Amino acid sequence: MRTLYHTSLSPNCRKIRILLREKELEFEQVIENFWDRRTEFFALNPAGEVPVLLEPDGQTICGNYSITEYLEEAYRDNNKRFLGGSIGERTEIRRLVDWFDDKFNREVTQNIVFEKVFKRLLRCGEPQSDAIRAGKKNILYHLEYIAFLTQEHRFLGGDMLTLADMTAAAHFSTLDYLGDVPWDHNAKAKEWYALMKSRPSVRSVLSDRVAAFQPPAHYENPDF
Amino acid sequence: MRTLYHTSLSPNCRKIRILLREKELEFEQVIENFWDRRTEFFALNPAGEVPVLLEPDGQTICGNYSITEYLEEAYRDNNKRFLGGSIGERTEIRRLVDWFDDKFNREVTQNIVFEKVFKRLLRCGEPQSDAIRAGKKNILYHLEYIAFLTQEHRFLGGDMLTLADMTAAAHFSTLDYLGDVPWDHNAKAKEWYALMKSRPSVRSVLSDRVAAFQPPAHYENPDF
Repeated sequence: MRTLYHTSLSPNCRKIRILLREKELEFEQVIENFWDRRTEFFALNPAGEVPVLLEPDGQTICGNYSITEYLEEAYRDNNKRFLGGSIGERTEIRRLVDWFDDKFNREVTQNIVFEKVFKRLLRCGEPQSDAIRAGKKNILYHLEYIAFLTQEHRFLGGDMLTLADMTAAAHFSTLDYLGDVPWDHNAKAKEWYALMKSRPSVRSVLSDRVAAFQPPAHYENPDF
Repeated sequence: MRTLYHTSLSPNCRKIRILLREKELEFEQVIENFWDRRTEFFALNPAGEVPVLLEPDGQTICGNYSITEYLEEAYRDNNKRFLGGSIGERTEIRRLVDWFDDKFNREVTQNIVFEKVFKRLLRCGEPQSDAIRAGKKNILYHLEYIAFLTQEHRFLGGDMLTLADMTAAAHFSTLDYLGDVPWDHNAKAKEWYALMKSRPSVRSVLSDRVAAFQPPAHYENPDF
């Protein structure tokens, strides 16, 4: 059986869970509280971080970047390719993936989700209110960028669902769990997220609950 | 002509410069002080960040992730492939690339290079001495990890040079420019870096100087 070690409020893990479901690859989910620093987990991934994927053939694949590229290379069913077909499409989709995993992560997710959730779990200090404020300010222009990208298309990279949408939805869903996405700021961005929320792959992620944090009432509802 | 927009002390840019030279792809370098937020540069890359590669056929490719994967896909000369041949090799090399671009970057580079150099350039506050201290502490076990990986091989991913070595060398070289790599901590790690320093691709990067910062005497010397 395929096994994914993950943490619920990690965008990197959410992306892999969505991608595996979109590719219709069965898997078992194991919650790994990586802040517990289990010796057995370090044996799987010397970085001590999630996500980690164990393939049925015994391969261990560590981290969001390596796992997404691996899944795209190993499972090449044309109807379930999410990095695009041509080299030009791949270049653009990877640019968008990087936008959310690097830029958005640095400007928004780290400032809000890391400060509010992971600092507590990792016991590395108190949330900094100026970081949270910066994250809440930065998220506005990213919502506008989502609207810009979907002006003439359903999805971020065109009319087909790609890894760019899954990456963005993974980040936004963790922020939305904390009630920190001002959806009313941009109707077009909200429309894109409603489309993502209606997908079974995303819905399966939204059903998670983490005891210490309660999501807002609209969190799972595609009509929000 | 191929053009790379870059900033000297950015590890992401250094990696692309090393990779282009290892692939023997000619290019022109243009220094982009991205903190000046030039309108023309935002037209090339809406993220306003470096590196950006303009290909001779007019394609624009933005960011370290998209550029490295593009170069590996577009130029497939078997003697100059740096992500490995088999899918298993690629998985491992991407894990190591991610180790340095994500984990090492977060634990070391951001704490030292961002605090000392980019905060000043981006005018976003004073360097935090506790961050610099954390970076200097964290770098030690990464040196030990380099030593572990090269115990039985010349390079990080085996006996061939890969993108993992270029990524790690790109990060270490920016820290070394600031005199912040305690090479005496680990002789094996120092040996690996001496091997990297002796490559013309890396040497061409080490010849850069940034007016406000002077590198230590050993910086360019492969016998240090």
